Amino acid sequence: MKEQDRKLDELCINTVRMLSVDMVEAAKSGHPGLPLGAAAIPYVLWTRLLRHNPANPSWPNRDRFILSAGHGSVLLYSLLHLTGYDLSLDELKGFRQWGSKTPGHPEYGLTAGVEATTGPLGQGFGMGVGMAMAARFLGGCFNRPGFPVLDPFVYALVSDGDLMEGVASEAASLAGTLGLGRLVYLYDDNRITIDGDTSITFREDVVRRFEGYDWHVQRLGDDADPDAIEQAIRNAQDEEQRPSLIIVRTHIGYGSPKQDSPKAHGEPLGPEATRETKERAGWPLEPPFHVPDEALARFRQALEEGGRREEQWREMFEDYKRSFPEEAGRFDLQFRSELAEGWDRDIPVFRSEDGPLATRAASGKVMNALAERVPNLLGGSADLAASLKTLLAGHDDRNIYFGVREHAMGAIVNGMALFGGVIPYGSTFLVFSDYVRPPMRLAALMDIHSLFIYSHDSIAVGEDGPTHQPIEHLASLRAIPNMTVLRPADANETVAAWRLAISRPRPTTLILTRQKVPVLDVSEGAHAHPMIEGVPKGAYVLSDCTGVPDVILIATGSEVHLALDAKARLQEEGIKTRLVSMPSWELFTEQTQDYRDSVLPPECRARLAIEAGSPVGWHRWVGHNGDVIAVDKFGASAPGGTVYREYGFTTENVLSKVRILLGK
Amino acid sequence: MKEQDRKLDELCINTVRMLSVDMVEAAKSGHPGLPLGAAAIPYVLWTRLLRHNPANPSWPNRDRFILSAGHGSVLLYSLLHLTGYDLSLDELKGFRQWGSKTPGHPEYGLTAGVEATTGPLGQGFGMGVGMAMAARFLGGCFNRPGFPVLDPFVYALVSDGDLMEGVASEAASLAGTLGLGRLVYLYDDNRITIDGDTSITFREDVVRRFEGYDWHVQRLGDDADPDAIEQAIRNAQDEEQRPSLIIVRTHIGYGSPKQDSPKAHGEPLGPEATRETKERAGWPLEPPFHVPDEALARFRQALEEGGRREEQWREMFEDYKRSFPEEAGRFDLQFRSELAEGWDRDIPVFRSEDGPLATRAASGKVMNALAERVPNLLGGSADLAASLKTLLAGHDDRNIYFGVREHAMGAIVNGMALFGGVIPYGSTFLVFSDYVRPPMRLAALMDIHSLFIYSHDSIAVGEDGPTHQPIEHLASLRAIPNMTVLRPADANETVAAWRLAISRPRPTTLILTRQKVPVLDVSEGAHAHPMIEGVPKGAYVLSDCTGVPDVILIATGSEVHLALDAKARLQEEGIKTRLVSMPSWELFTEQTQDYRDSVLPPECRARLAIEAGSPVGWHRWVGHNGDVIAVDKFGASAPGGTVYREYGFTTENVLSKVRILLGK
Repeated sequence: MKEQDRKLDELCINTVRMLSVDMVEAAKSGHPGLPLGAAAIPYVLWTRLLRHNPANPSWPNRDRFILSAGHGSVLLYSLLHLTGYDLSLDELKGFRQWGSKTPGHPEYGLTAGVEATTGPLGQGFGMGVGMAMAARFLGGCFNRPGFPVLDPFVYALVSDGDLMEGVASEAASLAGTLGLGRLVYLYDDNRITIDGDTSITFREDVVRRFEGYDWHVQRLGDDADPDAIEQAIRNAQDEEQRPSLIIVRTHIGYGSPKQDSPKAHGEPLGPEATRETKERAGWPLEPPFHVPDEALARFRQALEEGGRREEQWREMFEDYKRSFPEEAGRFDLQFRSELAEGWDRDIPVFRSEDGPLATRAASGKVMNALAERVPNLLGGSADLAASLKTLLAGHDDRNIYFGVREHAMGAIVNGMALFGGVIPYGSTFLVFSDYVRPPMRLAALMDIHSLFIYSHDSIAVGEDGPTHQPIEHLASLRAIPNMTVLRPADANETVAAWRLAISRPRPTTLILTRQKVPVLDVSEGAHAHPMIEGVPKGAYVLSDCTGVPDVILIATGSEVHLALDAKARLQEEGIKTRLVSMPSWELFTEQTQDYRDSVLPPECRARLAIEAGSPVGWHRWVGHNGDVIAVDKFGASAPGGTVYREYGFTTENVLSKVRILLGK
Repeated sequence: MKEQDRKLDELCINTVRMLSVDMVEAAKSGHPGLPLGAAAIPYVLWTRLLRHNPANPSWPNRDRFILSAGHGSVLLYSLLHLTGYDLSLDELKGFRQWGSKTPGHPEYGLTAGVEATTGPLGQGFGMGVGMAMAARFLGGCFNRPGFPVLDPFVYALVSDGDLMEGVASEAASLAGTLGLGRLVYLYDDNRITIDGDTSITFREDVVRRFEGYDWHVQRLGDDADPDAIEQAIRNAQDEEQRPSLIIVRTHIGYGSPKQDSPKAHGEPLGPEATRETKERAGWPLEPPFHVPDEALARFRQALEEGGRREEQWREMFEDYKRSFPEEAGRFDLQFRSELAEGWDRDIPVFRSEDGPLATRAASGKVMNALAERVPNLLGGSADLAASLKTLLAGHDDRNIYFGVREHAMGAIVNGMALFGGVIPYGSTFLVFSDYVRPPMRLAALMDIHSLFIYSHDSIAVGEDGPTHQPIEHLASLRAIPNMTVLRPADANETVAAWRLAISRPRPTTLILTRQKVPVLDVSEGAHAHPMIEGVPKGAYVLSDCTGVPDVILIATGSEVHLALDAKARLQEEGIKTRLVSMPSWELFTEQTQDYRDSVLPPECRARLAIEAGSPVGWHRWVGHNGDVIAVDKFGASAPGGTVYREYGFTTENVLSKVRILLGK
């Protein structure tokens, strides 16, 4: 019996290995080394321990599994297909081909059962920490004695490369600090990187390092069989106070002629080596994509087992619903990414009489007004809570202290968004968004509800100097596809931006001032209303002239106020001036041509854009005949008002540029 | 005597503390907490151990000191002033004011004795590792028995924040792997971050973690006096095989009413607390910026001592010059950032007959051709050497294996460039330049000779899919002030780009293709010549029509070949077409208006830009009447040619866009 089990294990593991090899061969591109070496690890996890239901990849209480080493995607696709997810053998045959569900690296949203887009190393490691944090937070919100409605484990398969990346170090340190006991990472320790043996670059003692982070660390040798792997994972599950790292010694390209060589990593084995590998494994050479019935049956038990588990959970949840109807309702709502009726009821309207305030301060007020009715809004900053005004007063369980770890913060926010049930945000100074770019890109690519709040948004930061004054960041963030960037001009535009950020479950970035700015006094009507309608359109006429304008001023954020001053002076001089507030290029781009032409009439070519950031991209809106007041060099350390003035952000400079535009 | 020394030490340390406090008070902005808490550490280092000559901050064999916790800049400025660098007391009084040499965070190139621009946490940690690597490499090149012409130590003062940042983890792991024995970091362990006690975010066991990285770690308690600090540094110096971390328990805001509180970190103490602090320290309340003569005399010994040391070194160097004239000549040349006569003699010229090759391959050939005559060119990649073609064959001492650590790679490249005497490069896939942005920004801000080589530059990467296909990266890099970005179209443009990158000691980024592209056959004359002259101008007419063009095609990199095909077809249709190759926006922007108008005549408004990246920024060159074929969404996994075609990079699409532009 035992021997029979052992043989079935081997058959199943080889099925994963050979499917993986065949996918790479068919695509003539991919990474066979990791699946050959590491297949046993997820095999044990997926068939013996992972709580999941392949028939319903969105069951909230499933365990999460992340392939942080995303280049091993064929391993994941094999497992998904074999265990019964909606991924056919034909899709496996279409690996890395146009229109397939099996891209080169796993993509969330494209393939059922893929929990996170991975490939850029370290990101999966960080996102897993975020998932475990979301699970713990939501468990705290919803679990009741006898009703553990949310208690998943979060697993990941990580590689040398993941452990070398700084984002993993940051996330590991925070996970240790927080004692995330339901986080279990399996490290594929194959001692090989693309450039050679890991000894050339990575001699560190991983055990000691992770013990330093206060992780529970186990190390399995070469001889670890499925039972040993299972036992290690069970030990990790039993350790409730600390995250776990299980180091499994593996051999890249196992069983192939390229075993233990970097050549096994990122290219097909080739027909000859494939043949040799299959022969050694006692595998039929033909046909490719061979799946033994016995192996398939073993894997497909996941469907039955998973269905049973989910059903048990649903029964519990029905009882829970009766005992805790309000919680159950909230649970469902949150996991459907919906907001409770009246979620926006407490959002303030700001009045110019109340005096100027920084948009970061307005943002803090809005967030705190939202906190009560959006109970799943949570997040924090990279050690700048007071500066960023992102603390939710009276909600300590929702304030996350990320430490000085911007990169991990971004990955963790993504992980929380992926977990579901929460609306997570991360925040820091805009200049440090550079540290967050890799996860911001993934948020945009995955199209998830990650919110990034950046304050201290221009040279007006002042004294801290050029290292702390963003210049290129607005342009750089706007260039990321599918990322909506909003730079509100005042408190009420900030309100409108937050409404959008909360109600639209999409990746969104808010850019806020450090310095105080007036609350715009919109003479046309009631306060805030033009913003509420205008901001979601990306740009709108904030203040107009009668008739066709001679010149259009376009500004964002704090520069809107400068433009407003200039407009008044220009009107006095008889120059008909329109002022367009343009908080979001992306949203404006999405509008109809008619709307865009109504805001920026094609016949008015005298246009001046004003923004205290890089000019890159502004010519799209001002054209050849227009001009831009922007910043094309680094900032300087001095009081903010001085820097602002010295860099040309003065009414006089605006007037002078407009006069040149109009040939006066 | 001993007691007298103790008192002088205390007086000197308090001088640093109170100068620092007064600077922050005068500026009404800054960070008094770190200087108050940590002053003793650099005091001991600078007065007892640091080998430097304040009269000559560019002495090549000086020890390097980096204030990685750059927010404590007043500490550094105090030390620079007191030990006799060219930084007057008046400059200290102008802290954080317009035009001063004492900006909010230390800026390399602005203030004598500042070895690196710091402030963004973790960067100083990484740059120090780079300096130690450059020192070791150059020591290996130049030191001879009895002539240790280059053997400096590299010191840094690092903070909790530095240690939390991923870039520091990456750099620490690599420093341990390389056994950088002359790297000595002093950790200001004050247990306080901006958001509160470090226990909320940073509970890790730093000793264990750094021992895991194979560092030599010492821990000093609360009671460490100057002698104990000195002894620890001497121990660290004696440890030749491993980098050293000395953990010194300190108290942020020491001696002030805000001691051990986050409030001491980033705001002035205020008049009341300043008074109290000075009183407790027995310091005169008036005048501010008080420097006791006795303390000044002690600090200024650095001038005499440093002068003597440099003189001794110069005498040795004169002997060295006699014994090793060639080496000495090269040493001088390299530290003057000059190139040897004939440095470019071996650079190849490529011919179209030799067949197409990827610009990354051409780049590799150029680098290898340069290697012999530019012996201080060194660098490597983040575990992608074979893909990036950046290995210098036969020069193992110059090939750096950074591991999967892009961020640290960037910081290390900067550190090497700052050290001087070398031309360092780092390389990875363009999509992962996101991980390198923070140090790239610093390279640009410091205006140093850091080279960044990025390959796999578009959706044409193909199978690896959207996680590996850059979209926004070109636009994002172009937005960084003072960073020259070049995307050559073929092998000979690559030659021209490399010439510029090597000969102009400025921050430069090369963007290269994964896929093969033809070598452009320039019919007008000898091979490569139009590129050699055209590339440094940023854009040039690669292929023209007779008379005024009907349409101008503007392209970069691989898209130049597509444009060339389209041009031939357009000319056949009787549409007079000019093709402009535009490898660098920054260089083109620097040209005269006349030159720019000669390339892009204002009268020709029908312009089409073609680039397989984000459209952001292209409207500057094509204007309102023009159009852009670009990529405004993420890529897809499929063979590169398929993706390229599906995203509209076809001759047919170019023709169709041109016809629309011309109203045909």
